[in-house]
Amino acid sequence: MKTEYSLLEIQSNIEGSELQNCNNPENVIIDCVVTLDDDKQNSISFVRSRAFVEQGKNSKATIVIVNKQLAKEFERPVLVVKNVEESLIPVLSLFHSPKSPNGTISEKSSIHETATIGENSQIGDFVIVGENSCIGKNCIIEGNVSIGKNVSIGDDSRVGPGNVIHDDVTIGDRFVSFGNCTIGADGFRFVFTPKGHMKIPQIGKVILGNDIEIGAQCTIDKGGLGDTVLGDGCKFDNMVHIAHNCILKNNIVIAAQSGIAGSSVIGNNVMISGHCAIQDHIELADGTIIAGKTGVRKSITKAGIYVGEHAQTLTKFNMLRKNISHLVRFDKWIKRIEKVEEKLSISKDEEK
Amino acid sequence: MKTEYSLLEIQSNIEGSELQNCNNPENVIIDCVVTLDDDKQNSISFVRSRAFVEQGKNSKATIVIVNKQLAKEFERPVLVVKNVEESLIPVLSLFHSPKSPNGTISEKSSIHETATIGENSQIGDFVIVGENSCIGKNCIIEGNVSIGKNVSIGDDSRVGPGNVIHDDVTIGDRFVSFGNCTIGADGFRFVFTPKGHMKIPQIGKVILGNDIEIGAQCTIDKGGLGDTVLGDGCKFDNMVHIAHNCILKNNIVIAAQSGIAGSSVIGNNVMISGHCAIQDHIELADGTIIAGKTGVRKSITKAGIYVGEHAQTLTKFNMLRKNISHLVRFDKWIKRIEKVEEKLSISKDEEK
Amino acid sequence: MKTEYSLLEIQSNIEGSELQNCNNPENVIIDCVVTLDDDKQNSISFVRSRAFVEQGKNSKATIVIVNKQLAKEFERPVLVVKNVEESLIPVLSLFHSPKSPNGTISEKSSIHETATIGENSQIGDFVIVGENSCIGKNCIIEGNVSIGKNVSIGDDSRVGPGNVIHDDVTIGDRFVSFGNCTIGADGFRFVFTPKGHMKIPQIGKVILGNDIEIGAQCTIDKGGLGDTVLGDGCKFDNMVHIAHNCILKNNIVIAAQSGIAGSSVIGNNVMISGHCAIQDHIELADGTIIAGKTGVRKSITKAGIYVGEHAQTLTKFNMLRKNISHLVRFDKWIKRIEKVEEKLSISKDEEK
Repeated sequence: MKTEYSLLEIQSNIEGSELQNCNNPENVIIDCVVTLDDDKQNSISFVRSRAFVEQGKNSKATIVIVNKQLAKEFERPVLVVKNVEESLIPVLSLFHSPKSPNGTISEKSSIHETATIGENSQIGDFVIVGENSCIGKNCIIEGNVSIGKNVSIGDDSRVGPGNVIHDDVTIGDRFVSFGNCTIGADGFRFVFTPKGHMKIPQIGKVILGNDIEIGAQCTIDKGGLGDTVLGDGCKFDNMVHIAHNCILKNNIVIAAQSGIAGSSVIGNNVMISGHCAIQDHIELADGTIIAGKTGVRKSITKAGIYVGEHAQTLTKFNMLRKNISHLVRFDKWIKRIEKVEEKLSISKDEEK
Repeated sequence: MKTEYSLLEIQSNIEGSELQNCNNPENVIIDCVVTLDDDKQNSISFVRSRAFVEQGKNSKATIVIVNKQLAKEFERPVLVVKNVEESLIPVLSLFHSPKSPNGTISEKSSIHETATIGENSQIGDFVIVGENSCIGKNCIIEGNVSIGKNVSIGDDSRVGPGNVIHDDVTIGDRFVSFGNCTIGADGFRFVFTPKGHMKIPQIGKVILGNDIEIGAQCTIDKGGLGDTVLGDGCKFDNMVHIAHNCILKNNIVIAAQSGIAGSSVIGNNVMISGHCAIQDHIELADGTIIAGKTGVRKSITKAGIYVGEHAQTLTKFNMLRKNISHLVRFDKWIKRIEKVEEKLSISKDEEK
Repeated sequence: MKTEYSLLEIQSNIEGSELQNCNNPENVIIDCVVTLDDDKQNSISFVRSRAFVEQGKNSKATIVIVNKQLAKEFERPVLVVKNVEESLIPVLSLFHSPKSPNGTISEKSSIHETATIGENSQIGDFVIVGENSCIGKNCIIEGNVSIGKNVSIGDDSRVGPGNVIHDDVTIGDRFVSFGNCTIGADGFRFVFTPKGHMKIPQIGKVILGNDIEIGAQCTIDKGGLGDTVLGDGCKFDNMVHIAHNCILKNNIVIAAQSGIAGSSVIGNNVMISGHCAIQDHIELADGTIIAGKTGVRKSITKAGIYVGEHAQTLTKFNMLRKNISHLVRFDKWIKRIEKVEEKLSISKDEEK
């Protein structure tokens, strides 16, 4: 991987981009991507939104990425793109390549004789791969990972250090996880009997689609009878919990420390912010957006933004919050009502 | 373990059960347990409640488990039981046996010379067992587990992969944990001084009773001076946190991502739903039920259902919610009160 | 380490302390620190606050620590100190010394040939230390830890079992962590495109100051472009999550299961209670205190105590809660207003 590029090389990596106010871009060298306030020379930075225009004008970066709408405000050298956030992907990828597998199986790992490891995959130190498990091609299984029995992991996947993958888990291609995740633990199902809580055996599986990425310390439990199923392209932040028998469709995004209780069904493209709790046995419509720290206690059948301890639409929630200011001086309103009643000689007989 | 059973064998496994509308149950073969909508042949399914009766009637399962109250509505073959949920335990256990230990100690583990391993216990790869620690009989310690010094684990226990058990932890019989739990970390106790936060040494222990099961990634901290103690039969979902010096009595159930702060005392049979926070130094009465995402900030002395950001009884909470609809149009009520006052020429002098 | 001390030795360990009602303290033997209700002989206990005075008087402990204000109420032997909590540190330290490194590198570890391990440091079994990583002097890296590439850990640090430290993490001196933490996972940054959520490469680092202690199962993510930075003396309870590009200043305390979303800036000495969520891109002023289970959705510019689903000052919050009792019977107030209007023949035309 090269560590420096000409400005022209960088521009040619971004589809539909154009340089503005730049001379000889083939001779301008860029060797790092920086934030707008950075001092580094030979650097490229970016203006995320209008709020950063002034900072962008004054930035010491050699070149600044801006979108078409904002480009005309700049007299300094800028790289004009359709979507700034998206353009960061090819730019950053020039300077930072994802790890690629080295095709070696550590002598300090423990691979069961019935397990199979795909071509060019890399197995780290102190990794366990259990009976009948199968790792795809071009994978990296990082150190100290424990993989149980009958586990299947698709091609081009990367399992983070310290992950535990219990038995009977199927994972698609291009899976990514970070440290200490746990997939395939038993669902939380007990029956209360006079002898205490008796466990209902959990015989389901976990089935994950392609292109799933989960942050550090996520948990995805196996199904009780049927399976826990995640569609393609789901992305989780850290410490996300998915309970037994949940069905998550495609491209769902869940931020840190949120959890979904058992048997709930989450529609395509749903976005769940951090610290949310989704109740068991409910459904969220495609495209639903759940604001941070929300509690969802019943199904949401219509896409929209939902918020609050008992999730409600943002509109209702804002009406409520507007009126909270009145509530806070409601004892004064009570006195006013009482005075009126007094003046009108209304008896309080029926009131308690 | 057999993989198929006659219907008669299955029925004879469930105490007090009866077959209805079945001929020759000794010749009917069952080889799987399925959900009602499954297509598999030779299968058994179950009707959990009245809501599933229609689905039960139309299910392609060979036989369907129902309770006595619902049995009369079925003309198809059913297996009638007292409690459907409870009957699932013997049925599922026929097809899915829990892991049993193979009695081997991996050559890739690291057992301190002073540690003892009970008869028939299985120690996985890359497991560490520290000084003076003692594992009971018939245990399974899965791969990559780290057990510190002076730890004791009772018979028939199963410690999940990647678990960390710090020093001075005592665990009862039949303990079960899933991936990446941490037991016996220091309690969170600092004194703020001019030199910063100074740590109060944590010299207590963790003492766990019998028949405790904890999900993936739970944490149970050691006591500061006294101990953190859990009674028998407690069951936790994933990512549950129990702080230093908590006392949990028997048969307590805690759902995912809930936490109990230091020195709180939780009564017998308490049920805590997901995403709850229980404050430090409080008590919950025996049998208390805490709804999802509740914050408990003072002791609860009377069993009941509690809910809300500041836990209150379900009755009060529902009254509050009913009145929220008025609150949302409270600005209109204000106008009405003002109009009345105007008509009565009431001065607003005292009001602000 | 001695296991018993004379009372005089103990007293001389606490700066500014005095014995009261004690004869021959050089002959009185203390061999344990206990809670006030303990029966053990030769013991020392402590009266944390006025609420414990009676218990202190009746305690069977040989000696009881009290502060100057409370000392005059005791006729029994007491050890009078300025600050009871603070005095526990030297007392408990006599009986409980922190682990010290044994200077050995386990043969069952895997240290990259380019990594360096400082003098007297101890590397546990099944530990991985990656390329170009550097462990300081007098460190303990406990078992099953995975350390990536280009990681630097300062002197006198202790990394708990099962920790994962991803690439490009820099940690200061005297760092402490407990089981299964993950530091340096990628930040959660995706761009939604017609092809699904595309990942923005995360090329920042994690930089931790000195004297940081984190509980079990915390996560601290790396920065996207810039770094995630924690100042000196920060202390976290279990399961705390710090997202990409957060800047935490010095001496910040965060209780269990709280999280801070991306790019937020937390001032010096901020205290965040358990189960809180701090939104992304906001700032908390120095000294801010956030009560348990609070959601902070905008910057806090003035120190104080903040509480509630949408954080507000404690004063406002208490006003709100006081008025909640009226809200709960607001339907009755509505009837009273309607009756008044009726009596005054006010039309409801404009109202709905």
